[in-house]
Amino acid sequence: MQRALSATRMVGNRPNFPEWYQNVVREADLAEPSPVRGSMIIKPWGYGVWELMQKDLDRRIKETGHDNCYFPLFIPLSFIAKEAQHVEGFAKEMAVVTHHRLKMIDGKLQPDPEAKLEEPLIVRPTSETIIGDAFSRWIRSHRDLPLLINQWANVVRWEMRTRLFLRTAEFLWQEGHTAHADAEDAMKETLKMLEVYRDFSETVLAMPVIPGEKSANERFPGADNTYSIEAMMQDGKALQAGTSHYLGTHFAEAQNIRFQNDAGELSYCHTTSWGVSTRLIGGVVMTHGDDDGLRLPPAIAPRQVVVVPMLRGKPEDAEVLAFCETLVKRLSEQTAFGERVRALLDTKDIRSAEKRWNWVRRGAPLIVEIGPRDVAGANVTYMRREDLRDGDKVRSHSQGVDAFVANVPAMLSEIQATLYREAKTRLDSNITRDVKNLGELSEYFGAAAADDDDAVEFKGWVRAPWSAPTGAALRDGGN
Amino acid sequence: MQRALSATRMVGNRPNFPEWYQNVVREADLAEPSPVRGSMIIKPWGYGVWELMQKDLDRRIKETGHDNCYFPLFIPLSFIAKEAQHVEGFAKEMAVVTHHRLKMIDGKLQPDPEAKLEEPLIVRPTSETIIGDAFSRWIRSHRDLPLLINQWANVVRWEMRTRLFLRTAEFLWQEGHTAHADAEDAMKETLKMLEVYRDFSETVLAMPVIPGEKSANERFPGADNTYSIEAMMQDGKALQAGTSHYLGTHFAEAQNIRFQNDAGELSYCHTTSWGVSTRLIGGVVMTHGDDDGLRLPPAIAPRQVVVVPMLRGKPEDAEVLAFCETLVKRLSEQTAFGERVRALLDTKDIRSAEKRWNWVRRGAPLIVEIGPRDVAGANVTYMRREDLRDGDKVRSHSQGVDAFVANVPAMLSEIQATLYREAKTRLDSNITRDVKNLGELSEYFGAAAADDDDAVEFKGWVRAPWSAPTGAALRDGGN
Repeated sequence: MQRALSATRMVGNRPNFPEWYQNVVREADLAEPSPVRGSMIIKPWGYGVWELMQKDLDRRIKETGHDNCYFPLFIPLSFIAKEAQHVEGFAKEMAVVTHHRLKMIDGKLQPDPEAKLEEPLIVRPTSETIIGDAFSRWIRSHRDLPLLINQWANVVRWEMRTRLFLRTAEFLWQEGHTAHADAEDAMKETLKMLEVYRDFSETVLAMPVIPGEKSANERFPGADNTYSIEAMMQDGKALQAGTSHYLGTHFAEAQNIRFQNDAGELSYCHTTSWGVSTRLIGGVVMTHGDDDGLRLPPAIAPRQVVVVPMLRGKPEDAEVLAFCETLVKRLSEQTAFGERVRALLDTKDIRSAEKRWNWVRRGAPLIVEIGPRDVAGANVTYMRREDLRDGDKVRSHSQGVDAFVANVPAMLSEIQATLYREAKTRLDSNITRDVKNLGELSEYFGAAAADDDDAVEFKGWVRAPWSAPTGAALRDGGN
Repeated sequence: MQRALSATRMVGNRPNFPEWYQNVVREADLAEPSPVRGSMIIKPWGYGVWELMQKDLDRRIKETGHDNCYFPLFIPLSFIAKEAQHVEGFAKEMAVVTHHRLKMIDGKLQPDPEAKLEEPLIVRPTSETIIGDAFSRWIRSHRDLPLLINQWANVVRWEMRTRLFLRTAEFLWQEGHTAHADAEDAMKETLKMLEVYRDFSETVLAMPVIPGEKSANERFPGADNTYSIEAMMQDGKALQAGTSHYLGTHFAEAQNIRFQNDAGELSYCHTTSWGVSTRLIGGVVMTHGDDDGLRLPPAIAPRQVVVVPMLRGKPEDAEVLAFCETLVKRLSEQTAFGERVRALLDTKDIRSAEKRWNWVRRGAPLIVEIGPRDVAGANVTYMRREDLRDGDKVRSHSQGVDAFVANVPAMLSEIQATLYREAKTRLDSNITRDVKNLGELSEYFGAAAADDDDAVEFKGWVRAPWSAPTGAALRDGGN
């Protein structure tokens, strides 16, 4: 069993990667900070990306037999206290609701002292406890197993240093929670969902990942085994892009989740949980962004083809607009990735050059510009966002309109494949060597590895043998 | 302009309507109370209904030009305080977050006194203030208008007496928020979304409604005009099923939402907001439920056809299962309501009679039972949930399998139409008369109308002339 270790420092040529990241998120109009400390506003373009991710992943989650539910946002403090007894290293940074009413006191609106809750409520940081409580009521016999539940929800974890999408107090995610009759079935589920995440990430996000097991000190508190998919960002750092936990019987024991087996005896269930979040959007930015902004994989681009009419306030504008409308209509009848092509005619009342660059920064895969000459020649002039420049110049293509319309599905597939290939090449070529033991590892990275991250030269990732943590016997190939 | 006034008392024959309602919600496996006071757990069948509602309504919201976003769950207290200054009758029952960490003190986990927030945060009861704040930053000129935003989210309103779906502390909803250059455009939007709700409710939920304007004392605090769709439940009471508000410039003034018009002058925007929630599921139950449980309109049934194999632990079971699998596969290739038919083979390890009644209670539109005799004759035996009984007996139909498969889309459409027609007849026939003035109204309902609801004989609803509230000049046909 081997494990990739991350070293730090730039792969690319961006001296300040975090600043570049924040700029792309802002310029691509994905999200912005909100007046609520640590919380973000996800703007239409960013939320559109999330909706497409959700739709595809939701289908995969349902196809693997899981049902969606919705559980309460609030968790009684007593549930958390019980978990704290069973789980070491359990995080206590949580939003606590203590009052249920505001009152005007001395001209100032404030929590009403008479409306103090008898028991404080916690805004869910994750839902193991509240879902486990339901499982303890829902599960009676082996006929109720496996119980396979998923939830799309917002969760809150108080964070001191926040970065849009990557680490915010509130974020959106899905959390799967399942209960099984034995360890083998639960481990199979844990690894099945890890594989769902891997395939989703590589196929839909065009983001290559390394699936593997986390070491003991990086485990989810209460888990026997924590698996994750890790992606290499353009600064050479690893992003944990999704996790899948085998929880053993820890939560079942804390919450009395038991079933009657064939022999009529009560046993504890083995449970799992797994999740991915809006952090994935951050991963897409750090995987595919370039100096001009975001490049979106067409599978998750809210608009795959944007048509910008070059209007000059002259009579021929009407013809240009009519041509563009027909083009968008025809494009919308084409199919890519099993769905209708998402085409948009941008009629906003701003200059067309500004529109072009808006869509470049947002990462629309194909950007079409139509002027009177295109109309006259029944031509389409377009840019491919994944291959925007020839040196410093923007690379523009021209094609007959019929051929272009017919060609769009194939181009979108090519763009998706190119983005994946670029990222995969970056990952592979930056796994620079195999080391045999801790000595070689130290030697290669040197003492600097333990120091300040950003001061260290990026030396790639290495493959190294790994002494698996306890629980290894349960694994059946999930590294 | 006329307005339907609701009287109370049973239409049907259920002496305890609230108890019947809770039973149907439980027996249909839609939702259950949670250990968190006032919050519910939406179970897979109930959540599946909500997902189908969401999908259809989301398409309508996007087709009318709105973009989805996501705004923070938490709202700073200062935002609420500012709103309270501008808005009379503003509700103060809200969940208040005061701490961001738990700490073990004297062996007890509690809010850490050192982690008290400088400014308390409110769990959003609705998002006018936090979205308005973003609008004030996003809107600069008339080119940015109209700004048309929607959000799917959970919200929290502290409630003392809760009923599943109808009134819970936390619920799921969508909230539209828009900004416009003038009153006319904002009012057009307000009424457009009311019409979207009306059509959605009648077409998709098979729930006839009366769209109209609420009187001044029922307005959303801060609104100039509040419109709603109201449906008649089987107890003769009205359910407010969706609202659309014209907010004038109240919120724009409180939050400084301004734009520069053509002449270069700054003016306040006119804003709207509109929403429907998981309460609609309660409306569906109280509209279509019967003595056997729920009857779901096929358009929102997570499973439209459920196939129950009659297994006896004998060798012919394999043939029965194979026949059922083929049947489900063929049904899933059919199309109804523009989507693939949602068919399920119920292989759960329980008695088939129990399965049948589970699906009857859950309201699956078509329930198929296949035994060895059906297999031998290439027949399908089925029940239609909307027309389950002939007197006390369950009405069972039989048809050749090819004819049945071909016929399913038409049957589902018929069931949808029948449920609507039944509810529409109930509504129309219980609008018992026209009254000309307040005197006639009092005379018809008598003094009892003002007393305890449940003690009053149901005398139907009446049509009465209505002296419209201030703001009437702005309306253009949205009674």
